Amino acid sequence: MAVKLGPNQYGKAEVRMVTVDRSGPVHHIKDLTVSTALRGDLEATHLTGDNSVVVATDTQKNTVYAFAKESPVGEIEDFALRLGRHFVGAFGHITGARVLIDEHGWDRIEVAGKPHDHAFSRSGDEKRTTAVTVDGDRAWVVSGLRDLVVLKSTGSEFHGFPRDKYTTLAETDDRILATAVSAHWRYLGVEDIDWRGAFGDVRQTLLEAFASLHSLSLQQTLYAMGEAVLERRPEVAEIRLSLPNKHHFLVDLTPFGLGNDNEVFFASDRPYGLIEGTVLRDDAEDAGLAWHTLPAF
Amino acid sequence: MAVKLGPNQYGKAEVRMVTVDRSGPVHHIKDLTVSTALRGDLEATHLTGDNSVVVATDTQKNTVYAFAKESPVGEIEDFALRLGRHFVGAFGHITGARVLIDEHGWDRIEVAGKPHDHAFSRSGDEKRTTAVTVDGDRAWVVSGLRDLVVLKSTGSEFHGFPRDKYTTLAETDDRILATAVSAHWRYLGVEDIDWRGAFGDVRQTLLEAFASLHSLSLQQTLYAMGEAVLERRPEVAEIRLSLPNKHHFLVDLTPFGLGNDNEVFFASDRPYGLIEGTVLRDDAEDAGLAWHTLPAF
Amino acid sequence: MAVKLGPNQYGKAEVRMVTVDRSGPVHHIKDLTVSTALRGDLEATHLTGDNSVVVATDTQKNTVYAFAKESPVGEIEDFALRLGRHFVGAFGHITGARVLIDEHGWDRIEVAGKPHDHAFSRSGDEKRTTAVTVDGDRAWVVSGLRDLVVLKSTGSEFHGFPRDKYTTLAETDDRILATAVSAHWRYLGVEDIDWRGAFGDVRQTLLEAFASLHSLSLQQTLYAMGEAVLERRPEVAEIRLSLPNKHHFLVDLTPFGLGNDNEVFFASDRPYGLIEGTVLRDDAEDAGLAWHTLPAF
Amino acid sequence: MAVKLGPNQYGKAEVRMVTVDRSGPVHHIKDLTVSTALRGDLEATHLTGDNSVVVATDTQKNTVYAFAKESPVGEIEDFALRLGRHFVGAFGHITGARVLIDEHGWDRIEVAGKPHDHAFSRSGDEKRTTAVTVDGDRAWVVSGLRDLVVLKSTGSEFHGFPRDKYTTLAETDDRILATAVSAHWRYLGVEDIDWRGAFGDVRQTLLEAFASLHSLSLQQTLYAMGEAVLERRPEVAEIRLSLPNKHHFLVDLTPFGLGNDNEVFFASDRPYGLIEGTVLRDDAEDAGLAWHTLPAF
Repeated sequence: MAVKLGPNQYGKAEVRMVTVDRSGPVHHIKDLTVSTALRGDLEATHLTGDNSVVVATDTQKNTVYAFAKESPVGEIEDFALRLGRHFVGAFGHITGARVLIDEHGWDRIEVAGKPHDHAFSRSGDEKRTTAVTVDGDRAWVVSGLRDLVVLKSTGSEFHGFPRDKYTTLAETDDRILATAVSAHWRYLGVEDIDWRGAFGDVRQTLLEAFASLHSLSLQQTLYAMGEAVLERRPEVAEIRLSLPNKHHFLVDLTPFGLGNDNEVFFASDRPYGLIEGTVLRDDAEDAGLAWHTLPAF
Repeated sequence: MAVKLGPNQYGKAEVRMVTVDRSGPVHHIKDLTVSTALRGDLEATHLTGDNSVVVATDTQKNTVYAFAKESPVGEIEDFALRLGRHFVGAFGHITGARVLIDEHGWDRIEVAGKPHDHAFSRSGDEKRTTAVTVDGDRAWVVSGLRDLVVLKSTGSEFHGFPRDKYTTLAETDDRILATAVSAHWRYLGVEDIDWRGAFGDVRQTLLEAFASLHSLSLQQTLYAMGEAVLERRPEVAEIRLSLPNKHHFLVDLTPFGLGNDNEVFFASDRPYGLIEGTVLRDDAEDAGLAWHTLPAF
Repeated sequence: MAVKLGPNQYGKAEVRMVTVDRSGPVHHIKDLTVSTALRGDLEATHLTGDNSVVVATDTQKNTVYAFAKESPVGEIEDFALRLGRHFVGAFGHITGARVLIDEHGWDRIEVAGKPHDHAFSRSGDEKRTTAVTVDGDRAWVVSGLRDLVVLKSTGSEFHGFPRDKYTTLAETDDRILATAVSAHWRYLGVEDIDWRGAFGDVRQTLLEAFASLHSLSLQQTLYAMGEAVLERRPEVAEIRLSLPNKHHFLVDLTPFGLGNDNEVFFASDRPYGLIEGTVLRDDAEDAGLAWHTLPAF
Repeated sequence: MAVKLGPNQYGKAEVRMVTVDRSGPVHHIKDLTVSTALRGDLEATHLTGDNSVVVATDTQKNTVYAFAKESPVGEIEDFALRLGRHFVGAFGHITGARVLIDEHGWDRIEVAGKPHDHAFSRSGDEKRTTAVTVDGDRAWVVSGLRDLVVLKSTGSEFHGFPRDKYTTLAETDDRILATAVSAHWRYLGVEDIDWRGAFGDVRQTLLEAFASLHSLSLQQTLYAMGEAVLERRPEVAEIRLSLPNKHHFLVDLTPFGLGNDNEVFFASDRPYGLIEGTVLRDDAEDAGLAWHTLPAF
């Protein structure tokens, strides 16, 4: 029997780093979770335990912290590009890198109506993310967000679906539609992009499209969200959305002599619908390695 | 050998309910997790399986949903009081009830700068809570919040602690101070209290005290937070705080020829310090059963 | 207004420690999560930030690790007693301590049918626990277990409960009964107890009582489990059980022309019943501070 | 601007199902979490909300439950194949399906040394998994396991790695090696495979290879585990492993005048190394859609 090593990567996952910009009396903080993974000519360590080209994951972690001091972190996309290019450039046998960063938001605490100089509160569980892939001298950026939980209390229907012997679901022309948005979008190129501006626009566009569309299916809402993003930001080539349908079931109150005109709901955890899809430009350049080892949606 | 039944309670935990107020074009939603527990003369079911006085937990759940329809939910404290008093009043052998409610916040989505009528996004993971205990015709309300995560990037010192043979910690006059606030406060009485106003004031007071105190220990911060709350709201008799010290360790960058003037930190998960304490009025009335079966802090 | 400091404690939570006994070729490992909390005359740090009696939580952590080297860890109850007594004895203003330990189990990996000398696999998520409270020269031990998940596919009924206007639950003489056992028992005294033997017996007794009783209510099962433990181990004064009723709902297959004779179930996450209770000896000595700051059940 | 719908799928996620085989006095249970996802000609719902070909996710859920009654569930691979082929066969516009199943293990409770007929305890958190992809009349099976946590207290070294300016890690010839194994293997074909026998062998082979190899790197261990599986089971074409390096750091006890000969460790949560790789047969047939939308490792 002959077996061989197939695709592989290794790195340090979930390096938790908080940086403080203390250049003035008003502090600025960044709270990141950074994961790095390297690829290359790594047969030796797998087959014989020869680690001569294995950049230790501890070294990868150190590099994250050191880079944050050597120059300002800036936007997560830029920081991930710096890290990825460093690993690929500095080590001969390392030909590729993938850097994931989650950014956790903080708001300034207000004291007597004024934002405090150095006290903050966490903005919630939503994350701004990036996934940067470097391969040789090429690079791709996929940015995104996770755990943006949204709900519409009306303006959502679901009917006209096929009925077979296992179908019991009633059609509805008014239901709660709720989801936790995971969105990841691929940028055209990696230079001269206003990462922060684009992120803010994409996020707001997703929210507005979710809110505004009178929805006939969560798929329709997904497509409308993706389409609106592509219309809004020309540097986005493609967006992938994963939308769990967080079911809110109308409680049957008739046993208690009560009606329920879409007023009282049971918010269910599991099972849930899961709608996943991609919206992309007709003429988008090939994705290359942009999505390599990332979740499909 | 003679054994006997000691303290006990039973109920339905984590009833997830979302209500929609559709009385006008602008919808209002409430998102609650309700847990009920009943006490009383329950020996029979324990000793012989005779369930003649066991109000089924399924019935408790139904009651939560039905009550939400029968009249507006209102503030969680009032809703919990209604539920608790109902169970104690309606069933002869049930002499006590404890109702816990977590309220999950939602913000209105803004579309083109205007708040949407019926589209919302989750405000984060922080919860507003209440724990109402009813015993016969008496009742107590303990309200609170959980998972309010805050951080100061300066304005915190820690020194002067005793050093024994196991002490290695360096003294510091500048560190990050971060915690996830759990606060629970007992109200004086249960009538004519502006629950929403009190909650908002307590929350803001906790934030301001955390931000404003130049801290020499997390204990000092805890006490200052509690004291400020008692000063601000006369209807609060006592407040209990549980403050994990979410350590942010300065990364040693000297091996890389770099300084680190409180700029780059490793945010650690475990272990963590845990500071727990109570601040109460000198003349506060006895707590009675207010904290019965609740966590100590 | 006059306010004061009430009950308080502080310490280091969730110190993760793995020890390896390498005294012979066959290694033995222990995997513990240790939390320490100290009490005493701690007004100064709360009111003024004077830390002169505040044993740093970092020092508490160091002490855990050092004690594990200074002599064998042994049973978690003994290790917790050593730690708690040390803190109370070594520092004048510290008058009390509470030490919580979770022990995570590991099994030896079998290779070619023989247990390996130094390779292990985790036994699951169940934890063996202890909570030791020291106050001056007194001490109490409460041991327990968490996350022991059990299920009976028959031998459980539930009927005879009262029906009010909110009751819809059907009576049943055959249902699945499933729960995740949390049990905590108080020992009589702290000397000359075979902690490991008692733990093993209690755990097995809980399992056997759960399995053997034809159950008319989860309360009845709870009491039978507690009673059996007290009968089996004379050094146990009292046991507190928290039993979530993990509902398994029979799926209605009649729309598909199918019966369902207790064969196909939906395992629900939330809401769940929660049955909590205490079984104790008639003549048990007073619990003193044994349960101080522990969960009620 | 022209945009279009790209890859997409939708379904019901995490259907929790427990089945009881009551054909004799000795019951047998299966505890599954089933997720289905369908693909096909789904443009209409995305672009216009026309749901005429959208098999409701509720219908998918019903089908899971009904199928479990219509004939015995059997092995999860067979059950997933039945479900996937049904959806593709029954609905014209549905051309593909992916069915994920996690199986949760239960052991029989022993009472007085004998296995009980109908009482069980959960075996832990490890899951046996399958991911079946159906596309037209083709099908692929990828089976696996998750959360198999293993540890070696010796027999692991790590040295010889490159040192750059960011490297501080000391070389070691004796460390704890611990990981939580996620393994997913692709079968050659989908007929006449002894799914249960293969699973048992793969699992045991993974354990034995982990235990037996004197490890010079976690990559070497990964490869050895994969190679051993391919040698053991000819029907496995390829295996992908994801191995977090769960670091156990030796505690520095020298400040306390104590040595630490690999005896006392701090078990760290984050960050962690993450080693991911594939081992496959030289002559393995093309994977086709076997891994479509699955995690890369």
